[in-house]
This record gives sequence, C-alpha cells and structure tokens, in this order.
Amino acid sequence: MGYDLTPQGLHDLAEGAAVLGTGGGGDPYIGRLLVEKEMAAGRTVHIIGADELPDGALVLPSSMMGAPTVFVEKLPSGDGNAAAFRALEEHLGRTAHAVMPTECGGLNSMIPLMLAAQLGLPVVDADGMGRAFPELQMQTFGVLGVSGSPMAIASDHGDTAIITAGDNKRMEQLARALTIQMGGASYISDYPMDTADVRRTSVHGTLTLCRRIGETLREARVTHADPFDALTKMLAGTIYSLGTVLFQGKVVDVERRTVDGFARGRARLEATGDPGDVLEITFQNEHLVARRNGTMVAIVPDLICTLNTESGAPIPTESLAYGQRLTVYGISTPPIMRTPEALACFGPAGFGLPDAYVPLEDL
Amino acid sequence: MGYDLTPQGLHDLAEGAAVLGTGGGGDPYIGRLLVEKEMAAGRTVHIIGADELPDGALVLPSSMMGAPTVFVEKLPSGDGNAAAFRALEEHLGRTAHAVMPTECGGLNSMIPLMLAAQLGLPVVDADGMGRAFPELQMQTFGVLGVSGSPMAIASDHGDTAIITAGDNKRMEQLARALTIQMGGASYISDYPMDTADVRRTSVHGTLTLCRRIGETLREARVTHADPFDALTKMLAGTIYSLGTVLFQGKVVDVERRTVDGFARGRARLEATGDPGDVLEITFQNEHLVARRNGTMVAIVPDLICTLNTESGAPIPTESLAYGQRLTVYGISTPPIMRTPEALACFGPAGFGLPDAYVPLEDL
Repeated sequence: MGYDLTPQGLHDLAEGAAVLGTGGGGDPYIGRLLVEKEMAAGRTVHIIGADELPDGALVLPSSMMGAPTVFVEKLPSGDGNAAAFRALEEHLGRTAHAVMPTECGGLNSMIPLMLAAQLGLPVVDADGMGRAFPELQMQTFGVLGVSGSPMAIASDHGDTAIITAGDNKRMEQLARALTIQMGGASYISDYPMDTADVRRTSVHGTLTLCRRIGETLREARVTHADPFDALTKMLAGTIYSLGTVLFQGKVVDVERRTVDGFARGRARLEATGDPGDVLEITFQNEHLVARRNGTMVAIVPDLICTLNTESGAPIPTESLAYGQRLTVYGISTPPIMRTPEALACFGPAGFGLPDAYVPLEDL
Repeated sequence: MGYDLTPQGLHDLAEGAAVLGTGGGGDPYIGRLLVEKEMAAGRTVHIIGADELPDGALVLPSSMMGAPTVFVEKLPSGDGNAAAFRALEEHLGRTAHAVMPTECGGLNSMIPLMLAAQLGLPVVDADGMGRAFPELQMQTFGVLGVSGSPMAIASDHGDTAIITAGDNKRMEQLARALTIQMGGASYISDYPMDTADVRRTSVHGTLTLCRRIGETLREARVTHADPFDALTKMLAGTIYSLGTVLFQGKVVDVERRTVDGFARGRARLEATGDPGDVLEITFQNEHLVARRNGTMVAIVPDLICTLNTESGAPIPTESLAYGQRLTVYGISTPPIMRTPEALACFGPAGFGLPDAYVPLEDL
C-alpha cells in the first residue's frame, strides 16, 4: 500500500507543485533540496492515500508561512517544522500517525515530505487547497467545518507559539502577525484532524497529481511534444478535468511589493506578434485573476499558471521579469473547491475582488 | 495575615498607581471600576506579602498589554484576563495559588485585583517594575533570571495563544504583534513563578506603597497641606527614599502618536512666571526623560510623574493638554532596579536613549 517516492518522482512532484502553485506558494526548488538531503541520508518519503489511514488516527499538516519573496532570500532551516509539529502534538497530548500537506502547490508540497522523512512518518496524498493560496483560512478543511486551531508556529530562533483562535480567519491574522515578527517566514502545523476529517474535507490525490504533471512536462521535453497539449490530455482524466492555454506572449511590465507579509502586484504581457493584445495578471502571492484586453479569462480559485513557452517550466511571480516568453495556462479546480461555501472563502470575494466567479469552462 | 482591601483603600491604591504610572501604564480609573464591580458583587480582594506564600506555590501574574491611548477608547471586558490565566495554568498543568501584578503603576495595578477577586485567590503585594514600563522584558523578574514565557495572551474575541520565546525581548515582540492584531489591547499572563522566585526577583510591597501614596494625597487635600511636601515625607521612609519637585509650570505643547502599538511623544512645559524656563518630557507610554533648558533633570528608571499642581492628582500622557498647570515630580527607584543588569534592561539604554543613567539624587 502507498508508495515510496523516488528521486525522479521527487523532481517531477516539485515541478508539478510549481505548476499548481499558480505563480505563488514559494518555489518548490528550495524545498526539494531539503527533501533530497533527507533522501541522501537514507530516509524515505512514503506516500499513502487517505483511505489507507487507520480509523481515528491523528494527522497533522505541516507547512511554511510567509511571503514567497522572503523564502528566496531566507532559506528554511529544516528544523522549524519539526519544532512546530512537536509543539502541537504536545499541546494536544497525542502522537500523530501521519504528516499531511495543507497546500500541494509551491514550496509547501515539499515541506511535509521533508518532515515525514525526518520523523519516519507517512505523508497523506491529499491537501486542503488543491493548489496554493496565500492565507491559512483558505482551505477545504475549514470550509467543511474543521477548525484550523489549535495551531503551532515556530521561528528559526527557538520561539514557538500555540494559537487557539475564535475562527480560522482570525487564526490567519494572528499567525501572520507572528510570522512577520519571525522574519517574514515561519513553520506551522495547523488543522489537526482525525482520519474521518481528512477523508471528508481534503482534496484527494494531489501529491500524486503533482508528480504526474511534472512527469508529463518532462516526457514532453524528451519527445519534443507540445507541453501544453500533453498537460491538457493528462488533466482530462483527473478531478481537475480542464487545462487550457489562455494566452501566449512576452512579459512587458511587473509591479511587485512585499506588503503586510504578502507578495502583491501585477504582471502585464503582450501577445506574441500583436503588441495591442494585452493580458494582465493580478497576484497576492498567487495569481488571482487574468484579464485579456480588460475581459476576464480566468479567476480564482481556478488556476492561472505562468509557464515558460519553450519548456513548459512554471515561473513563480518572484521570478517574473521583462522579456520572458510565457504561456498563461488555466486549470479548472475540482468540484469540492467550487461550492458556494468554498467560493466565499477562497473565490473572488475571499480576496476582495469585485468580480463574480465564472468557471474556467464557461469563459 | 495579609489584609482585605477596603473601597477607600482601592481608591487610594488606584491614585497611587497612577502616580507610579509616570504618565503611562493606562489610567487606573478604568481598572478601578472593574474591581469595584467585583467588590459590589460581594467578592474580596485579599492582599498578602510574598513572605506569606507557601513554599513551592505557583504564582501567575496578570496584566493588560497595549497602548494606554487604546485602553481609553476600548474598555477591558473583564473576562480576558481569566482566559489568559486559565490558558497558562492549563499549559503548565498546574493550579496557581495566587495572582500577582507585573506592573504596579497604572491600569495594571488594578487588573490582578479584579482577577483575584473573580477567582477567589490572594494577590501578592509585589511586582516586577516598581512603576510602569512599556515592554514585557522590562521586569526585575527577567533581569534576575526568570523566563517570561511560556506566557498566555487572550483577546476580546475568544482567541488565546501560548508563546514560548527564546528570550524575554522576543516574547515582547511576538506578544506585541498579537496585541496589535487583537485590536491594540490584550490580556496576558506571563512570568510564571514559584514562591522562591517571587521572593527573590520582585519589588516588594508595591501595592501597599501605591495605597499609601494615594492616602497621602487624599489626606493632604483634606488638610489643605502641600501634597508634594506630604509625598516627599511619606516616601522618605520607603524603598523609594527620595521624592522631589523637579518643575512647576504650564503645558504649552504636546506631540503624541500611537505607533507600533505604543503611545510615543513629547510634552513641553513653561515655568510658572518665567516662559523662558522650559521643561521637555519624552515618553514611550511612560515618561522616559525630563530635560530643563536642555539639561537632564531625571531619567528612566527613576520616576517622572506629572501631577496636577493644585491637587497632586496624577495626569497620564493621554490626558496631557495645553494650558494644564502641572508639577513634575521625581521619585528615585529602589536599589533592585538600579543594578547594571537592571539598567541595561530598562535604563536609558533599554529605550535607545543616548544618555547615561544618573540617579535622581545626583541631579
């Protein structure tokens, strides 16, 4: 049951996680190096399905919190996640059976793999976002009634805190304030869950999906196939169903600030061969909305991915730069992320956007 | 042993606490109303000396955190302190024998009285500041080796957190960030101590001292005696030893901002009958330094109190206003607050002031 991740599988998973990071979530590259270090030391990353958990087991997620622009400059120590995980176990007075991602997109796909290898625990093949989101309350777990707290947070300086918040949005605000004090990046363990909650509230199979996205892009490179066609074919058989090219062009402007602990900004692209055809992407860590000549072509929680037009390699917002040739690729989110409750939490309204949500398929 | 506080004793204690608040610490008036409410409900405030604690007992301080300017607009609920106190008990897995102030100056003289009455516990007649200070690491407890954390913090919205920080200064930074998110005011319990630490590291008898200061000012009003002479006579027999009038004049300018969770600013006074004779006070919640025509006349941790020239009534910085006739009154701090370690923590260097500490007696 389950499977051990191979070094090649880890590479693929990291690339797929960068695609589902939709420009944010932090570059998985850094996290991949941390997992490789564990593997090189002889440790194993064992991935299991939510259906393989014993009934009544405690599962604790593990992730990093902060602005991706900070992760690039301040590398994770590799110790903080265990500190947060252990602090939460101690607070709950229970031992965890498995680690789990909250966010399969970006750096946070890698963090639970590293921690699981360190602790000798399995990783559950599921998460609470099916992509990356910038805030802690933006989780299917919470939308479906799981409390994010008590949560644990740790710094690189030996500080830990346990937050028990009145609701998940306040948990986010309190944890964000601590994260900023902790240097803009922190290690957290939130949404403690038992097996039944994991099965009921998570987006299933997302680590394996990341791995398959990475595999698809890698194979397309080897066979000189069109990476976007390959991706679209592969996604058609998954809970994500639709993947489609939204725009191809050149980056002509990027505006990016790290404010309130987030990377916020906008990117502007001109279509290949037609400078009058313009796509603008707005982001808060992740890409939130894409408008082509003023008309919306994709909006959160559907995924807006910025991929290198040659190779299909995902480009995070912190690496966006003038002159890059990009393909903007849309992916539809799974049904569990499109309920009215889910959209209120992490749809356009959750980000203060004035637009109504329109599914990618209808645009 | 010990004594029950009378309604008159509470009034006196609140006024004395405002004197030792040195312009900050929040106006005890608000806290006094909360204690009066408990007394009116038939509950008792029982004050005991540190020497009356049984050996090995757990003592938990209780206080509010935030800018005095916020306390004026957002009144304490009266419930948050119990939430923080209980959260810390639960985290430690122990039951507290007594409540204690960390800060006998200002509002935080009243908070432990209210909580002790609510919980039916005694209050220890001692604190960690002997006055008011703006930051959590500024305590004789910490200077003498007690860890401020684990500490508990609670909001008015049902949120609690337990912070375990690498040192007391980081505890302050993390708790301050949460306090700002909690609306600029929070309820905390920090520096959990046993009897031996309380006896060794606290400034003793400060609640009773506050009560005697208030009593002295009240009696001076009744007998039409000079309140400052009366205060000076009374202090001469205490660990504070010296009280002296530094300046008498009129407020001509006040500059005050609430920034980073603190009330910061300056006040300018002109001497009665000589507008060319000017005193300037700099404050961060509390008065830090007083300079007369550019020459320092008192500096932290000695106390710089702004008192109404007619009545001796203390005026907090948030109430300073143009035209007030004030007496600036200096009080020397007890020896436990003047060691090199103490001065490094809450002397001029602790506040980033360039001046060297000179005891009030030598100025």
